[in-house]
Amino acid sequence: MADEVLQRLAALGLTLPAAPQPMGAYRAIVEAGSMLHVSMQGPLRDGRPTHRGLIGRELTIEDGVLAARQSVLNGLAQIHAHLGGFERIRQIVRLEGCVACIDEFLNHPKVLDGASELLADLFGDRAGHVRLVCGVRNLPGNVPVAVALTADLTSPAN
Amino acid sequence: MADEVLQRLAALGLTLPAAPQPMGAYRAIVEAGSMLHVSMQGPLRDGRPTHRGLIGRELTIEDGVLAARQSVLNGLAQIHAHLGGFERIRQIVRLEGCVACIDEFLNHPKVLDGASELLADLFGDRAGHVRLVCGVRNLPGNVPVAVALTADLTSPAN
Amino acid sequence: MADEVLQRLAALGLTLPAAPQPMGAYRAIVEAGSMLHVSMQGPLRDGRPTHRGLIGRELTIEDGVLAARQSVLNGLAQIHAHLGGFERIRQIVRLEGCVACIDEFLNHPKVLDGASELLADLFGDRAGHVRLVCGVRNLPGNVPVAVALTADLTSPAN
Repeated sequence: MADEVLQRLAALGLTLPAAPQPMGAYRAIVEAGSMLHVSMQGPLRDGRPTHRGLIGRELTIEDGVLAARQSVLNGLAQIHAHLGGFERIRQIVRLEGCVACIDEFLNHPKVLDGASELLADLFGDRAGHVRLVCGVRNLPGNVPVAVALTADLTSPAN
Repeated sequence: MADEVLQRLAALGLTLPAAPQPMGAYRAIVEAGSMLHVSMQGPLRDGRPTHRGLIGRELTIEDGVLAARQSVLNGLAQIHAHLGGFERIRQIVRLEGCVACIDEFLNHPKVLDGASELLADLFGDRAGHVRLVCGVRNLPGNVPVAVALTADLTSPAN
Repeated sequence: MADEVLQRLAALGLTLPAAPQPMGAYRAIVEAGSMLHVSMQGPLRDGRPTHRGLIGRELTIEDGVLAARQSVLNGLAQIHAHLGGFERIRQIVRLEGCVACIDEFLNHPKVLDGASELLADLFGDRAGHVRLVCGVRNLPGNVPVAVALTADLTSPAN
Protein backbone atom coordinates (compact mmCIF):
# COMPACT_ATOMS: atom_id res chain seq x y z
CA MET A 1 0.00 0.00 0.00
CA ALA A 2 1.38 3.39 -0.91
CA ASP A 3 1.96 5.83 1.91
CA GLU A 4 -0.99 8.26 1.93
CA VAL A 5 1.01 11.05 3.50
CA LEU A 6 3.69 10.85 0.84
CA GLN A 7 0.98 10.85 -1.84
CA ARG A 8 -0.61 13.94 -0.36
CA LEU A 9 2.74 15.68 -0.05
CA ALA A 10 3.34 15.04 -3.72
CA ALA A 11 -0.17 16.22 -4.62
CA LEU A 12 0.56 19.49 -2.80
CA GLY A 13 3.79 19.86 -4.75
CA LEU A 14 5.85 19.46 -1.60
CA THR A 15 8.90 17.34 -0.97
CA LEU A 16 10.35 16.50 2.40
CA PRO A 17 13.52 18.43 3.20
CA ALA A 18 16.61 16.59 4.41
CA ALA A 19 16.14 15.98 8.12
CA PRO A 20 18.15 18.66 9.98
CA GLN A 21 20.97 17.61 12.27
CA PRO A 22 20.45 18.25 15.99
CA MET A 23 21.99 21.55 17.16
CA GLY A 24 23.68 19.92 20.16
CA ALA A 25 24.14 16.79 22.25
CA TYR A 26 20.64 15.39 21.80
CA ARG A 27 18.75 13.22 19.33
CA ALA A 28 16.36 14.36 16.65
CA ILE A 29 13.88 11.63 17.54
CA VAL A 30 13.23 9.13 20.32
CA GLU A 31 10.71 6.28 20.44
CA ALA A 32 9.45 5.30 23.90
CA GLY A 33 6.65 2.79 24.22
CA SER A 34 4.17 3.65 21.49
CA MET A 35 5.09 7.35 21.54
CA LEU A 36 7.41 9.03 19.10
CA HIS A 37 9.00 12.25 20.32
CA VAL A 38 10.56 14.67 17.85
CA SER A 39 12.95 17.41 18.93
CA MET A 40 11.92 20.98 18.36
CA GLN A 41 12.40 21.96 14.73
CA GLY A 42 12.87 25.40 13.27
CA PRO A 43 12.37 26.64 9.69
CA LEU A 44 15.65 25.37 8.30
CA ARG A 45 16.19 24.50 4.66
CA ASP A 46 19.51 23.17 3.42
CA GLY A 47 20.98 23.92 6.84
CA ARG A 48 19.98 27.59 6.89
CA PRO A 49 16.96 29.40 8.34
CA THR A 50 14.34 30.40 5.80
CA HIS A 51 13.40 33.32 8.08
CA ARG A 52 15.24 35.21 10.82
CA GLY A 53 14.04 37.78 13.30
CA LEU A 54 10.98 38.60 15.36
CA ILE A 55 7.44 38.57 14.04
CA GLY A 56 6.28 42.15 14.14
CA ARG A 57 9.75 43.59 13.65
CA GLU A 58 11.75 41.99 10.80
CA LEU A 59 8.98 39.57 9.85
CA THR A 60 5.27 39.63 9.03
CA ILE A 61 2.62 37.23 10.20
CA GLU A 62 2.68 35.66 6.71
CA ASP A 63 6.41 35.00 7.18
CA GLY A 64 5.55 33.30 10.45
CA VAL A 65 2.98 31.06 8.79
CA LEU A 66 5.54 29.98 6.19
CA ALA A 67 8.15 29.41 8.89
CA ALA A 68 5.73 27.25 10.89
CA ARG A 69 4.99 25.24 7.77
CA GLN A 70 8.69 24.70 7.07
CA SER A 71 9.28 23.74 10.72
CA VAL A 72 6.65 21.04 10.63
CA LEU A 73 8.03 19.74 7.33
CA ASN A 74 11.34 19.31 9.12
CA GLY A 75 9.58 17.41 11.90
CA LEU A 76 8.01 15.14 9.29
CA ALA A 77 11.42 14.70 7.66
CA GLN A 78 12.74 13.46 11.03
CA ILE A 79 9.87 11.01 11.31
CA HIS A 80 10.41 9.77 7.77
CA ALA A 81 14.14 9.34 8.38
CA HIS A 82 13.38 7.33 11.52
CA LEU A 83 10.42 5.19 10.44
CA GLY A 84 10.89 5.10 6.67
CA GLY A 85 7.35 6.37 6.14
CA PHE A 86 4.19 7.53 7.88
CA GLU A 87 2.03 4.42 7.93
CA ARG A 88 2.80 3.67 11.57
CA ILE A 89 1.56 7.11 12.69
CA ARG A 90 -1.73 6.36 14.43
CA GLN A 91 -2.18 10.01 15.35
CA ILE A 92 -0.25 13.23 15.79
CA VAL A 93 -0.87 13.76 19.51
CA ARG A 94 0.78 17.01 20.42
CA LEU A 95 2.28 20.09 18.81
CA GLU A 96 4.26 22.49 20.98
CA GLY A 97 5.03 25.76 19.30
CA CYS A 98 7.07 28.79 20.24
CA VAL A 99 6.69 32.07 18.41
CA ALA A 100 9.42 34.71 18.72
CA CYS A 101 7.68 38.04 18.37
CA ILE A 102 7.48 41.59 19.59
CA ASP A 103 5.67 42.39 22.84
CA GLU A 104 2.59 43.64 20.99
CA PHE A 105 2.06 40.56 18.81
CA LEU A 106 -0.98 38.53 19.83
CA ASN A 107 -1.92 36.32 16.90
CA HIS A 108 0.19 33.26 17.68
CA PRO A 109 -2.64 30.89 16.68
CA LYS A 110 -2.59 32.16 13.11
CA VAL A 111 1.15 31.53 12.88
CA LEU A 112 0.92 28.00 14.27
CA ASP A 113 -1.98 27.16 11.99
CA GLY A 114 0.71 27.15 9.29
CA ALA A 115 1.87 23.94 10.97
CA SER A 116 -1.48 22.52 12.09
CA GLU A 117 -3.24 23.00 8.76
CA LEU A 118 -0.45 21.26 6.88
CA LEU A 119 -0.77 18.32 9.29
CA ALA A 120 -4.52 18.24 8.64
CA ASP A 121 -3.94 18.28 4.87
CA LEU A 122 -1.45 15.43 5.08
CA PHE A 123 -2.79 13.17 7.83
CA GLY A 124 -6.55 13.72 7.60
CA ASP A 125 -8.24 11.96 10.51
CA ARG A 126 -4.87 11.13 12.00
CA ALA A 127 -3.82 14.80 12.23
CA GLY A 128 -5.78 15.79 15.32
CA HIS A 129 -3.41 17.11 17.98
CA VAL A 130 -3.47 19.24 21.06
CA ARG A 131 -1.48 22.44 20.87
CA LEU A 132 0.63 24.39 23.30
CA VAL A 133 1.87 27.82 22.33
CA CYS A 134 3.62 30.82 23.77
CA GLY A 135 5.30 33.98 22.61
CA VAL A 136 8.97 33.80 23.51
CA ARG A 137 11.86 36.21 23.69
CA ASN A 138 13.89 34.43 21.04
CA LEU A 139 14.82 31.04 19.61
CA PRO A 140 18.12 29.40 18.67
CA GLY A 141 19.67 30.98 15.61
CA ASN A 142 17.14 33.81 15.54
CA VAL A 143 14.34 31.81 13.93
CA PRO A 144 10.79 33.12 14.47
CA VAL A 145 9.04 29.79 15.08
CA ALA A 146 9.88 26.32 16.34
CA VAL A 147 7.61 23.31 16.77
CA ALA A 148 7.90 19.95 18.49
CA LEU A 149 5.75 16.98 17.48
CA THR A 150 4.71 13.93 19.47
CA ALA A 151 2.93 11.05 17.74
CA ASP A 152 1.26 7.80 18.74
CA LEU A 153 2.47 4.79 16.77
CA THR A 154 0.92 1.50 15.82
CA SER A 155 3.01 -1.61 16.42
CA PRO A 156 5.60 -2.44 13.77
CA ALA A 157 4.22 -4.72 11.06
CA ASN A 158 5.36 -8.33 11.39
CA MET B 1 -21.32 6.44 42.47
CA ALA B 2 -21.37 10.22 42.32
CA ASP B 3 -18.37 11.94 40.82
CA GLU B 4 -16.22 13.26 43.71
CA VAL B 5 -14.71 16.04 41.64
CA LEU B 6 -18.13 17.37 40.65
CA GLN B 7 -19.23 17.18 44.30
CA ARG B 8 -16.18 19.15 45.41
CA LEU B 9 -16.68 21.72 42.67
CA ALA B 10 -20.24 22.23 43.89
CA ALA B 11 -19.07 22.42 47.52
CA LEU B 12 -16.65 25.20 46.50
CA GLY B 13 -19.50 27.04 44.79
CA LEU B 14 -17.88 26.54 41.39
CA THR B 15 -19.41 25.41 38.14
CA LEU B 16 -17.52 24.26 35.08
CA PRO B 17 -17.47 26.82 32.29
CA ALA B 18 -18.44 25.82 28.76
CA ALA B 19 -15.38 24.19 27.21
CA PRO B 20 -13.69 26.82 25.00
CA GLN B 21 -13.35 26.16 21.29
CA PRO B 22 -9.82 25.67 19.97
CA MET B 23 -8.26 28.88 18.61
CA GLY B 24 -7.08 27.17 15.42
CA ALA B 25 -6.68 23.94 13.48
CA TYR B 26 -6.12 21.66 16.46
CA ARG B 27 -8.17 19.68 18.96
CA ALA B 28 -8.99 20.64 22.51
CA ILE B 29 -8.21 17.16 23.76
CA VAL B 30 -6.54 13.96 22.54
CA GLU B 31 -6.44 10.54 24.16
CA ALA B 32 -3.40 8.39 23.36
CA GLY B 33 -2.89 5.11 25.18
CA SER B 34 -3.82 5.81 28.79
CA MET B 35 -2.80 9.45 28.58
CA LEU B 36 -5.18 12.34 28.08
CA HIS B 37 -3.64 15.47 26.62
CA VAL B 38 -5.45 18.81 26.91
CA SER B 39 -4.53 21.80 24.77
CA MET B 40 -3.27 24.91 26.48
CA GLN B 41 -6.13 26.85 28.05
CA GLY B 42 -6.27 30.52 28.94
CA PRO B 43 -8.58 32.38 31.32
CA LEU B 44 -11.57 32.59 29.02
CA ARG B 45 -15.14 32.85 30.24
CA ASP B 46 -18.05 32.99 27.80
CA GLY B 47 -15.56 33.32 24.98
CA ARG B 48 -13.75 36.34 26.39
CA PRO B 49 -10.59 36.68 28.51
CA THR B 50 -11.24 37.41 32.19
CA HIS B 51 -7.88 39.23 32.30
CA ARG B 52 -5.70 40.85 29.66
CA GLY B 53 -2.17 42.20 29.86
CA LEU B 54 1.11 41.48 31.57
CA ILE B 55 1.50 40.68 35.24
CA GLY B 56 3.37 43.58 36.77
CA ARG B 57 2.03 46.11 34.25
CA GLU B 58 -1.76 45.97 33.72
CA LEU B 59 -2.27 43.12 36.18
CA THR B 60 -1.37 42.23 39.76
CA ILE B 61 -0.18 38.89 41.05
CA GLU B 62 -3.68 38.33 42.49
CA ASP B 63 -5.09 38.79 38.98
CA GLY B 64 -2.63 36.17 37.82
CA VAL B 65 -3.77 33.71 40.49
CA LEU B 66 -7.40 34.16 39.41
CA ALA B 67 -6.45 33.80 35.75
CA ALA B 68 -4.57 30.56 36.48
CA ARG B 69 -7.61 29.26 38.35
CA GLN B 70 -9.92 30.10 35.45
CA SER B 71 -7.49 28.50 32.98
CA VAL B 72 -7.45 25.22 34.85
CA LEU B 73 -11.26 25.27 35.12
CA ASN B 74 -11.32 25.47 31.33
CA GLY B 75 -8.97 22.49 31.16
CA LEU B 76 -11.32 20.57 33.43
CA ALA B 77 -14.26 21.62 31.27
CA GLN B 78 -12.48 20.09 28.27
CA ILE B 79 -11.94 16.85 30.18
CA HIS B 80 -15.58 16.77 31.29
CA ALA B 81 -16.78 17.39 27.74
CA HIS B 82 -14.60 14.52 26.51
CA LEU B 83 -15.04 11.91 29.25
CA GLY B 84 -18.40 12.91 30.70
CA GLY B 85 -16.90 13.09 34.20
CA PHE B 86 -13.70 12.73 36.20
CA GLU B 87 -13.89 9.19 37.51
CA ARG B 88 -11.47 7.85 34.92
CA ILE B 89 -8.76 10.32 35.96
CA ARG B 90 -6.24 8.18 37.78
CA GLN B 91 -3.92 11.16 38.29
CA ILE B 92 -3.17 14.60 36.93
CA VAL B 93 0.37 13.98 35.68
CA ARG B 94 1.63 17.24 34.33
CA LEU B 95 0.79 20.93 34.34
CA GLU B 96 2.65 23.22 31.95
CA GLY B 97 2.13 26.88 32.65
CA CYS B 98 3.19 30.06 30.92
CA VAL B 99 3.05 33.42 32.68
CA ALA B 100 3.12 36.61 30.60
CA CYS B 101 4.80 39.20 32.79
CA ILE B 102 7.20 42.09 32.90
CA ASP B 103 10.93 41.44 32.95
CA GLU B 104 11.15 42.07 36.70
CA PHE B 105 8.42 39.63 37.75
CA LEU B 106 9.80 36.56 39.51
CA ASN B 107 6.96 34.96 41.43
CA HIS B 108 5.59 32.63 38.76
CA PRO B 109 5.07 29.81 41.29
CA LYS B 110 2.56 31.88 43.24
CA VAL B 111 0.56 32.53 40.07
CA LEU B 112 0.51 28.88 39.01
CA ASP B 113 -0.48 27.77 42.49
CA GLY B 114 -3.85 29.26 41.56
CA ALA B 115 -4.14 26.28 39.21
CA SER B 116 -2.31 23.65 41.28
CA GLU B 117 -4.17 24.37 44.52
CA LEU B 118 -7.54 24.10 42.80
CA LEU B 119 -6.49 20.71 41.41
CA ALA B 120 -5.50 19.63 44.93
CA ASP B 121 -8.85 20.77 46.31
CA LEU B 122 -10.76 18.90 43.63
CA PHE B 123 -8.76 15.72 43.05
CA GLY B 124 -7.16 15.09 46.45
CA ASP B 125 -4.68 12.23 46.18
CA ARG B 126 -5.15 12.17 42.42
CA ALA B 127 -4.06 15.80 41.99
CA GLY B 128 -0.31 15.34 42.30
CA HIS B 129 1.40 16.61 39.15
CA VAL B 130 4.77 17.79 37.99
CA ARG B 131 4.94 21.39 36.90
CA LEU B 132 6.81 23.26 34.20
CA VAL B 133 6.74 27.03 34.17
CA CYS B 134 8.32 29.97 32.43
CA GLY B 135 7.81 33.68 32.06
CA VAL B 136 6.97 34.44 28.46
CA ARG B 137 6.80 37.51 26.28
CA ASN B 138 3.08 37.18 25.59
CA LEU B 139 0.26 34.72 24.98
CA PRO B 140 -2.50 34.48 22.38
CA GLY B 141 -5.13 37.16 22.83
CA ASN B 142 -3.08 38.99 25.47
CA VAL B 143 -3.99 36.68 28.35
CA PRO B 144 -1.56 36.64 31.31
CA VAL B 145 -1.57 32.89 31.99
CA ALA B 146 -2.15 29.66 30.09
CA VAL B 147 -1.93 26.08 31.32
CA ALA B 148 -1.87 22.65 29.69
CA LEU B 149 -2.90 19.51 31.56
CA THR B 150 -1.93 15.90 30.98
CA ALA B 151 -3.67 13.11 32.89
CA ASP B 152 -3.35 9.36 33.32
CA LEU B 153 -6.60 7.48 32.79
CA THR B 154 -7.96 4.21 34.09
CA SER B 155 -9.47 1.87 31.50
CA PRO B 156 -13.06 2.59 30.45
CA ALA B 157 -15.59 0.75 32.62
CA ASN B 158 -17.15 -2.28 30.93
CA MET C 1 25.35 -4.86 40.39
CA ALA C 2 26.59 -1.38 41.19
CA ASP C 3 24.71 1.54 39.68
CA GLU C 4 26.70 2.70 36.63
CA VAL C 5 25.39 6.23 36.82
CA LEU C 6 26.48 6.62 40.43
CA GLN C 7 29.89 5.21 39.52
CA ARG C 8 30.26 7.68 36.67
CA LEU C 9 29.14 10.56 38.87
CA ALA C 10 31.82 9.60 41.38
CA ALA C 11 34.43 9.25 38.60
CA LEU C 12 33.60 12.80 37.49
CA GLY C 13 34.05 14.03 41.07
CA LEU C 14 30.35 14.92 41.30
CA THR C 15 27.87 14.20 44.04
CA LEU C 16 24.13 14.50 43.77
CA PRO C 17 22.74 17.55 45.52
CA ALA C 18 19.84 17.20 47.95
CA ALA C 19 16.66 17.05 45.85
CA PRO C 20 15.10 20.55 45.92
CA GLN C 21 11.63 20.96 47.39
CA PRO C 22 8.88 21.96 44.95
CA MET C 23 8.29 25.74 44.84
CA GLY C 24 4.50 25.32 45.15
CA ALA C 25 1.53 22.97 45.27
CA TYR C 26 2.93 20.31 42.94
CA ARG C 27 5.16 17.25 43.12
CA ALA C 28 8.80 16.99 42.19
CA ILE C 29 8.22 13.72 40.37
CA VAL C 30 5.32 11.63 39.05
CA GLU C 31 5.37 8.11 37.60
CA ALA C 32 2.65 7.29 35.07
CA GLY C 33 2.74 4.00 33.21
CA SER C 34 6.38 3.45 32.30
CA MET C 35 7.12 7.17 32.12
CA LEU C 36 8.77 9.19 34.85
CA HIS C 37 8.07 12.92 34.76
CA VAL C 38 10.30 15.32 36.68
CA SER C 39 9.24 18.88 37.45
CA MET C 40 11.27 21.71 36.00
CA GLN C 41 14.47 22.20 37.97
CA GLY C 42 16.61 25.30 38.23
CA PRO C 43 20.24 25.69 39.30
CA LEU C 44 19.67 25.51 43.04
CA ARG C 45 22.27 24.34 45.51
CA ASP C 46 21.52 24.14 49.23
CA GLY C 47 18.23 25.91 48.57
CA ARG C 48 19.76 28.92 46.79
CA PRO C 49 20.35 29.70 43.11
CA THR C 50 23.93 29.26 41.95
CA HIS C 51 23.30 31.94 39.31
CA ARG C 52 20.79 34.76 39.00
CA GLY C 53 19.98 37.08 36.12
CA LEU C 54 19.78 37.02 32.36
CA ILE C 55 22.36 35.49 30.07
CA GLY C 56 23.89 38.37 28.17
CA ARG C 57 23.30 40.89 30.96
CA GLU C 58 24.40 39.70 34.43
CA LEU C 59 25.62 36.31 33.20
CA THR C 60 27.87 34.87 30.51
CA ILE C 61 27.23 31.88 28.32
CA GLU C 62 29.67 29.91 30.51
CA ASP C 63 27.51 30.76 33.54
CA GLY C 64 24.56 29.41 31.61
CA VAL C 65 26.34 26.14 30.86
CA LEU C 66 27.14 25.68 34.56
CA ALA C 67 23.57 26.55 35.52
CA ALA C 68 22.19 24.00 33.03
CA ARG C 69 24.54 21.38 34.48
CA GLN C 70 23.42 22.15 38.03
CA SER C 71 19.76 22.05 36.94
CA VAL C 72 20.09 18.60 35.47
CA LEU C 73 21.92 17.38 38.58
CA ASN C 74 18.87 18.49 40.55
CA GLY C 75 16.64 16.55 38.17
CA LEU C 76 18.81 13.47 38.72
CA ALA C 77 18.63 14.05 42.47
CA GLN C 78 14.82 13.94 42.20
CA ILE C 79 15.01 10.67 40.27
CA HIS C 80 17.41 9.19 42.81
CA ALA C 81 15.20 10.25 45.72
CA HIS C 82 12.21 8.62 44.01
CA LEU C 83 13.70 5.41 42.62
CA GLY C 84 16.67 4.91 44.92
CA GLY C 85 19.02 4.70 41.93
CA PHE C 86 19.21 4.87 38.15
CA GLU C 87 19.10 1.23 37.09
CA ARG C 88 15.43 1.41 36.09
CA ILE C 89 16.07 4.27 33.65
CA ARG C 90 15.73 2.66 30.25
CA GLN C 91 16.29 5.98 28.52
CA ILE C 92 16.12 9.71 29.09
CA VAL C 93 13.37 10.56 26.58
CA ARG C 94 12.94 14.29 26.71
CA LEU C 95 14.64 17.40 27.99
CA GLU C 96 12.72 20.67 27.96
CA GLY C 97 14.86 23.69 28.64
CA CYS C 98 14.16 27.36 29.09
CA VAL C 99 16.91 29.96 28.87
CA ALA C 100 16.33 33.42 30.35
CA CYS C 101 18.40 35.77 28.25
CA ILE C 102 18.56 39.16 26.60
CA ASP C 103 16.80 39.74 23.28
CA GLU C 104 20.06 39.45 21.34
CA PHE C 105 21.16 36.10 22.75
CA LEU C 106 20.92 33.27 20.21
CA ASN C 107 23.11 30.43 21.44
CA HIS C 108 20.61 28.53 23.56
CA PRO C 109 21.90 25.15 22.29
CA LYS C 110 25.33 25.79 23.80
CA VAL C 111 23.75 26.54 27.19
CA LEU C 112 21.56 23.44 27.17
CA ASP C 113 24.46 21.24 26.11
CA GLY C 114 25.63 21.78 29.69
CA ALA C 115 22.70 19.55 30.62
CA SER C 116 22.70 17.20 27.62
CA GLU C 117 26.42 16.47 27.70
CA LEU C 118 26.32 15.59 31.38
CA LEU C 119 23.48 13.16 30.65
CA ALA C 120 25.58 11.61 27.87
CA ASP C 121 28.56 11.25 30.22
CA LEU C 122 26.43 9.60 32.89
CA PHE C 123 23.95 7.46 30.97
CA GLY C 124 25.90 6.55 27.82
CA ASP C 125 23.57 4.75 25.40
CA ARG C 126 20.61 5.49 27.66
CA ALA C 127 21.13 9.28 27.50
CA GLY C 128 19.64 9.95 24.09
CA HIS C 129 16.79 12.46 24.40
CA VAL C 130 14.85 14.86 22.30
CA ARG C 131 15.20 18.50 23.25
CA LEU C 132 12.85 21.46 23.31
CA VAL C 133 14.24 24.91 23.98
CA CYS C 134 13.23 28.51 23.97
CA GLY C 135 14.51 31.85 25.17
CA VAL C 136 12.14 33.18 27.80
CA ARG C 137 11.53 36.46 29.51
CA ASN C 138 12.39 35.17 32.98
CA LEU C 139 12.15 32.18 35.28
CA PRO C 140 11.05 31.74 38.90
CA GLY C 141 13.53 33.26 41.34
CA ASN C 142 15.52 34.93 38.56
CA VAL C 143 17.46 31.83 37.54
CA PRO C 144 18.88 31.80 33.99
CA VAL C 145 18.05 28.21 33.08
CA ALA C 146 15.55 25.53 34.00
CA VAL C 147 15.17 22.00 32.64
CA ALA C 148 12.52 19.29 32.86
CA LEU C 149 13.35 15.62 32.30
CA THR C 150 11.12 12.75 31.21
CA ALA C 151 12.43 9.19 31.30
CA ASP C 152 11.26 5.75 30.22
CA LEU C 153 11.48 3.12 32.97
CA THR C 154 11.92 -0.63 32.95
CA SER C 155 9.54 -2.62 35.14
CA PRO C 156 10.48 -2.83 38.81
CA ALA C 157 12.63 -5.87 39.63
CA ASN C 158 10.78 -8.68 41.37
